[in-house]
Amino acid sequence: MAEIIKFVYLFKEGNRDMKELLGGKGANLAEMTRLGIPVPPGFTITTEACNKYYRTKNIFQEGLEDQVRNAVKALETEMGMKFGDPSNPLLLSVRSGARVSMPGMMDTVLNLGMNEEMVRGLIDRTDDERFAWDSYRRFIQMYGDVVLGLKPQRKDEEDPFEVLLDSMKKDRGVAHDTELNAGDLKMLSKDFKDLIRTNLGVPFPRDPWEQLWGAIEAVFGSWMNDRAKTYRRINDIPSDWGTAVNVQAMVFGNMGEDCATGVAFTRDPATGENIFFGEYLTNAQGEDVVAGVRTPYQVTLEGSRRWAQRDQIDEVARERDFPSLEERMPLQYKELVSVYEDLEKHYTDMQDIEFTIQNGKLWLLQTRNGKRTAAAAIKIAVDMVEEGLIDERKAVSRIMPEQLDQLLHPTFDPRMKRDPIARGLPASPGAASGQIVFNAEDAEERSEANEKVILVRIETSPEDIGGMKSAQGILTSRGGMTSHAAVVARGMGKCCVSGCGSLRIDYERRWVDVEGTILKEGDWISLDGSTGEVMLGKIPTISPGIGGDFAKLMFWADGIRRLGVRTNADTPGDAVKAREFGAEGIGLCRTEHMFFEGDRINAMREMILAKDIEGRKKALSKLLPMQRDDFIGIFRAMVGFPVTIRLLDPPLHEFLPHDEESRSQMASELGISVEEVASRTEKLKEFNPMLGHRGCRLGITYPEITMMQARAIFEAAVQMVREGKEVRPEIMVPLVGTLRELELQKDIIDKTAREVMESSSLHVDYLVGTMIEVPRAALVADDIARSAQFFSFGTNDMTQMTFGYSRDDSGSFLPEYVQKGILQADPFKVLDRTGVGQLLEIGTKRGRAVNPRLKVGICGEHGGDPSSIEFCNMVGLDYVSCSPFRVPIARLAAAHAELKEH
Amino acid sequence: MAEIIKFVYLFKEGNRDMKELLGGKGANLAEMTRLGIPVPPGFTITTEACNKYYRTKNIFQEGLEDQVRNAVKALETEMGMKFGDPSNPLLLSVRSGARVSMPGMMDTVLNLGMNEEMVRGLIDRTDDERFAWDSYRRFIQMYGDVVLGLKPQRKDEEDPFEVLLDSMKKDRGVAHDTELNAGDLKMLSKDFKDLIRTNLGVPFPRDPWEQLWGAIEAVFGSWMNDRAKTYRRINDIPSDWGTAVNVQAMVFGNMGEDCATGVAFTRDPATGENIFFGEYLTNAQGEDVVAGVRTPYQVTLEGSRRWAQRDQIDEVARERDFPSLEERMPLQYKELVSVYEDLEKHYTDMQDIEFTIQNGKLWLLQTRNGKRTAAAAIKIAVDMVEEGLIDERKAVSRIMPEQLDQLLHPTFDPRMKRDPIARGLPASPGAASGQIVFNAEDAEERSEANEKVILVRIETSPEDIGGMKSAQGILTSRGGMTSHAAVVARGMGKCCVSGCGSLRIDYERRWVDVEGTILKEGDWISLDGSTGEVMLGKIPTISPGIGGDFAKLMFWADGIRRLGVRTNADTPGDAVKAREFGAEGIGLCRTEHMFFEGDRINAMREMILAKDIEGRKKALSKLLPMQRDDFIGIFRAMVGFPVTIRLLDPPLHEFLPHDEESRSQMASELGISVEEVASRTEKLKEFNPMLGHRGCRLGITYPEITMMQARAIFEAAVQMVREGKEVRPEIMVPLVGTLRELELQKDIIDKTAREVMESSSLHVDYLVGTMIEVPRAALVADDIARSAQFFSFGTNDMTQMTFGYSRDDSGSFLPEYVQKGILQADPFKVLDRTGVGQLLEIGTKRGRAVNPRLKVGICGEHGGDPSSIEFCNMVGLDYVSCSPFRVPIARLAAAHAELKEH
Repeated sequence: MAEIIKFVYLFKEGNRDMKELLGGKGANLAEMTRLGIPVPPGFTITTEACNKYYRTKNIFQEGLEDQVRNAVKALETEMGMKFGDPSNPLLLSVRSGARVSMPGMMDTVLNLGMNEEMVRGLIDRTDDERFAWDSYRRFIQMYGDVVLGLKPQRKDEEDPFEVLLDSMKKDRGVAHDTELNAGDLKMLSKDFKDLIRTNLGVPFPRDPWEQLWGAIEAVFGSWMNDRAKTYRRINDIPSDWGTAVNVQAMVFGNMGEDCATGVAFTRDPATGENIFFGEYLTNAQGEDVVAGVRTPYQVTLEGSRRWAQRDQIDEVARERDFPSLEERMPLQYKELVSVYEDLEKHYTDMQDIEFTIQNGKLWLLQTRNGKRTAAAAIKIAVDMVEEGLIDERKAVSRIMPEQLDQLLHPTFDPRMKRDPIARGLPASPGAASGQIVFNAEDAEERSEANEKVILVRIETSPEDIGGMKSAQGILTSRGGMTSHAAVVARGMGKCCVSGCGSLRIDYERRWVDVEGTILKEGDWISLDGSTGEVMLGKIPTISPGIGGDFAKLMFWADGIRRLGVRTNADTPGDAVKAREFGAEGIGLCRTEHMFFEGDRINAMREMILAKDIEGRKKALSKLLPMQRDDFIGIFRAMVGFPVTIRLLDPPLHEFLPHDEESRSQMASELGISVEEVASRTEKLKEFNPMLGHRGCRLGITYPEITMMQARAIFEAAVQMVREGKEVRPEIMVPLVGTLRELELQKDIIDKTAREVMESSSLHVDYLVGTMIEVPRAALVADDIARSAQFFSFGTNDMTQMTFGYSRDDSGSFLPEYVQKGILQADPFKVLDRTGVGQLLEIGTKRGRAVNPRLKVGICGEHGGDPSSIEFCNMVGLDYVSCSPFRVPIARLAAAHAELKEH
Repeated sequence: MAEIIKFVYLFKEGNRDMKELLGGKGANLAEMTRLGIPVPPGFTITTEACNKYYRTKNIFQEGLEDQVRNAVKALETEMGMKFGDPSNPLLLSVRSGARVSMPGMMDTVLNLGMNEEMVRGLIDRTDDERFAWDSYRRFIQMYGDVVLGLKPQRKDEEDPFEVLLDSMKKDRGVAHDTELNAGDLKMLSKDFKDLIRTNLGVPFPRDPWEQLWGAIEAVFGSWMNDRAKTYRRINDIPSDWGTAVNVQAMVFGNMGEDCATGVAFTRDPATGENIFFGEYLTNAQGEDVVAGVRTPYQVTLEGSRRWAQRDQIDEVARERDFPSLEERMPLQYKELVSVYEDLEKHYTDMQDIEFTIQNGKLWLLQTRNGKRTAAAAIKIAVDMVEEGLIDERKAVSRIMPEQLDQLLHPTFDPRMKRDPIARGLPASPGAASGQIVFNAEDAEERSEANEKVILVRIETSPEDIGGMKSAQGILTSRGGMTSHAAVVARGMGKCCVSGCGSLRIDYERRWVDVEGTILKEGDWISLDGSTGEVMLGKIPTISPGIGGDFAKLMFWADGIRRLGVRTNADTPGDAVKAREFGAEGIGLCRTEHMFFEGDRINAMREMILAKDIEGRKKALSKLLPMQRDDFIGIFRAMVGFPVTIRLLDPPLHEFLPHDEESRSQMASELGISVEEVASRTEKLKEFNPMLGHRGCRLGITYPEITMMQARAIFEAAVQMVREGKEVRPEIMVPLVGTLRELELQKDIIDKTAREVMESSSLHVDYLVGTMIEVPRAALVADDIARSAQFFSFGTNDMTQMTFGYSRDDSGSFLPEYVQKGILQADPFKVLDRTGVGQLLEIGTKRGRAVNPRLKVGICGEHGGDPSSIEFCNMVGLDYVSCSPFRVPIARLAAAHAELKEH
């Protein structure tokens, strides 16, 4: 005979460390019970019972039934009621509860154990006919939906019970459920049962025990439904974790005027202020507080007074019409305060609690860490350190890096209603309103006239940078999270929604068609770059604020992290901003953006169209002083910190104008024929520019470009030395795939450095390294490291090439890939550890094997993503680099990564 | 005191196994000497001496001088002459000689040991003043060029000695050097010496010993010059091999009428016929025979008679004016025959020999394996097996796989003069003449009227396939070796020159501008797809012939190789052709080409433009029967062999028309508005189609396409089973990067297979596998192999993504990369073993670790390249697949790879 295993634990038998066996919810209820908090008694059927149920092909385990019966008996004793006894019925709730909270699992069934006899018994005891019938029809509906499976799986189908409910309300001419009377609800419960019999061919189970077993089996079954399986696959949750089942005695806040129900936060979730904050209703059920049918009252007197003040209600009226729980039920309130204080101390975090008062007795139904705004999170964490509740490491670990975004960008006033007309990718956070313009020139012009504009484009290109800077926000119909628009906007800290596929932009007619709605140039729209929403009209925004608590928390984070945090910055302005955010140098300074401003583009085009090396050199000599000044500006903003400068990277055709008109203008400016311009442009065109003549390939075929850039860098550096300022240039050769490419470029750089230093008699320390971005570079990193002093992983391009995904085109399938669970996340946002990450690891390991002092960093968009930063920390990178606005996020994420590892 | 090392070996002290020490040339001369062949005596200074010279910073080793002096003494004794003795001067030749022949190393210096005294001595002995002065001035020129370094390093500079020679000829009013008399040559030798003194500031060395040491040091030095270093880097030759120096006594064929010189092949190098074949001149120097100033005579009587017959010269005139060596010098001829027979037997290969007869004495100057045509190579190899000289393995190893191309394609008559006007990439071998047309329709139309046309395009796209088939050859101005034009042309076995950058094609004016020359539609041009040359006008071609010897050799090769050889074929015609060439199945059947023919493109476009899944299904149902018929045709051609069918791969926009006119035509055909067509086309456009919405990404977002293709395959397969024919479909899912993609596609395929088999009650064995082409797929091969039954490496795309090179765009830098030695070869032609090869190895190893029965092949262009095939054999692939015309090459290369490994 097999040993009988303990499958059932009363709440008082468990504790919070038993999550594997009891699930998260069960362990938590047990913990509260253990603490002496008044929790309605209950028990948990273990995850082991669930797993065995599956292993034996859906048979309940031996012993399970007896154990459940005994546990119910214990509940009966404690509550002084009896399950299935019409004269004093104990009602139960049944919930699933896996180790981690999981969508797709079974919802709650409340009021289990009812039938018409029980209803009558309940009426006898409570003298509340409406309450009894309402409880019954709710039970049938929940049981029918989640246990018997009548809840539609697709969103566009209607719940059959809701259909009946709606038709009843229509019949009675009422708007709310609460307006239905006991008779209506009784009739509805009959209709509900008929519906079930018609649909399933069997009657609704009358027997409370049959109901209970059915519910338990439904919880087990929900572990293996399709939604749960998909969720587990996407989130890497093993299917053998199983789910527990929580069975708990029902308590009611709607059994009369000595009953109440409410939710509360132990501190203010909006500001973090250390005040008890909650709302309640008397004679109501929990869902009524949330549903908003009745306006809930404040729990504390102070809260109630503040609320009244805001709504300009005088104290007399307040006390009469909106009394606080503190006034209404002072004893229960006192107990609640004592309970919440215990809970917060016990969990050392702000708690979100649910409570019910049944006939004057307080019951706690749930406690969990409360959700909060970023500002509140920081204040609470810092306060708790000062209160001695938690230490600094814990405080740092409490703030989710992504939350910081809220503190760094304006947001729409959350009290304003928003009605999105379209939705794109949340490409760069923040909120903005402005008038539509369709090209960069207009954006610049109108913003100079102090108008606020939103630049709307199919996609953006480096030519648009000026306009992007001038606009409040950028909206594109194409391109992903790492499209040009998205990357540049994030760099500028400017709000951007990209890849908004439902827009049909017509540049010629100067309008955009949003699924039939035509928006014209000059129309006001609003963008939320954190959600990807596009709204009509103007919406007021709230400016961000970074308080002293923020600085304190970041200081603690900096003390924890091992990874350096640099920034991607192309201008002195960006560099200054990034320093303010705590960047420790520049990890990526792209030089190509410097070639678009003002007259430079003409010199650049002259260089591109030159017939021979002499012509190119002449044009480059015009660019030299401008580049030098750029670098001086950037070096000044980064005195004492390393500045990694990437040599020219994009294919040359990106610098040429695309339309007829600009071409002929260019031809006349350069004094050559339009035909010549066209022919050269045609020749430079590429089928796949991403894999084209760019990166160091340009420097190899046109060494004079590298020469000019190196000279500009060293002349700028020498100028800094002359001024007595520390300068640490790190020159980065892009797109290297073979050692020889780097060697050839390094020769030019070193030679130029010698020349500049000799002619100035000043010395500059510098490094030469390379971007590791083509997969081959990672595979032959041991080769390349022979000539490189540093590596910087360009994970944007590396992701493109490793997956074979063009970031500009992948919008047509990538969202579906993520949705179907083919990919766990957009690999351009979150580094793909398995594939791209493998190359990162290989590259770092092989590079360091040859050159142990090799500095290794990352400068793709992933440098600002917390999960990717964690991986960078794991594989031993030296630093990450990200756009200025993500620097604080990266600092915090780097601290988290380190906390996780140790 | 250090032990004295032996640095100098007389020829008679060495043998052919001493290549490491004596270099290739030295070992060979020693071997001939050892065989008793009359070779002018000489000695070799070892590679060790060279290495030590470098290690001691360019100092000659102790003992070297003595050893050289002793060796010269031995030469003097043997020749009965004396080095530096004007009365009977021994003259020497000095040559470099590394282990392998290496361009960039020092050329020969002849006649070393001369000065004006020697000239006079020589005149005394030979009574030939002109001979003596000519020998002297040649010596000064060679010594000045190669030892003193006056030879220009750049091709566009002139040799200063040639300038003087030319001006002398101009002065004397003569055209050839031979017309200068003794006085002229004497004067020239003085001018040469003046030139040297002016340029170097020191006089030309008079002392023979000084000359000798100078030449030896120059050979050593040439090992480390830039050209040699570059060559070694490119060819992976270690720099510590060093070079040997060969010093040999001079013999002269121009010292009178009892002197002669000639070259001969032991068998006919053009046909392979086993007859002695050679040419000679009396009283001449070796270079005179080659230079073509005097018409050389035939060595054998039979050869002489054949020659006379061809040129219609009667026997009397022949005997008088063009006697054979056999008639003229019968004794020496007999000795020569005996020598060549010995040499051929000794080296067991056809020899190319150089001989000189000095005053009636025969000297052999060189023997080496003779170059030969492909046909000759095969005949000689097969004959030698039958003669018992070599075994079958040796015979197979003798034929270079690439040579076979000559046998499979027409070639231009080599006797016709060709004058290339442009040069592109040799994209697909063969030769063709035709009239220029600029679009596919014209090509089809005119070829139907039996005209021969060459299709000239900027690039080709799948729409052009019909026209490409009709044309004699294809010429494009853009695209590399694996551009669409190149790949398709090779598949068709059609001549193609691609990426011919000097063409400026104007479709509208219907002309092409070749650096100023305008060629119009209808003009005749000729293409050589094996060299990339483009010629004006018509050039006659020679058809290929595959004889019985070829079949015999391939049979032997098949017995040796381990790798299977399949073909890439998209049509029954290609499949039949490939079977004739020995393909053992299809490794890649692309299905997209099937969608272009006839009406299909309309159904395809209807599918692409459909608004919903129903519309797509309707269009797909039209394509189903056509696809099924395609597969039936292919299965019939491949009965009993596996057929790997790749599901739809290219992005959908490739199937849409690009110009306004076709679009409106399409709109009216599909009954939708032009605007709708434009909008959908616009939406499908991609920035980097190579990395876009293609491959299995299509099958994931449009599962109905996969369903239709799977159904067509299985219905065709079932039809074969019904006919009692063996069918082995292998369905290949393209562009997989994650396990889940393959699983989702495999589910559809398996489900369709079940349906078709159930409804027909017939069974088909099939495999489902994937193309490994994105780098990530190789990195996670252990994952993917869980669901794959086979892998096929798509090394074209894998090369693109691993390097980040678009094959269509890389023409702008790749040639320079190869030329500069950044890459050893075009990685699209020859597999990059270090990078892409690493992924191949990783993918194979990890895939087999999970699934030991995994079949692994390659279907990129590399499957037909011998070096790449060798690598595939090394890493343990099961088969390679290539275009039909390369199948014999692959079979032979696979045999070579196996021979090399064992």
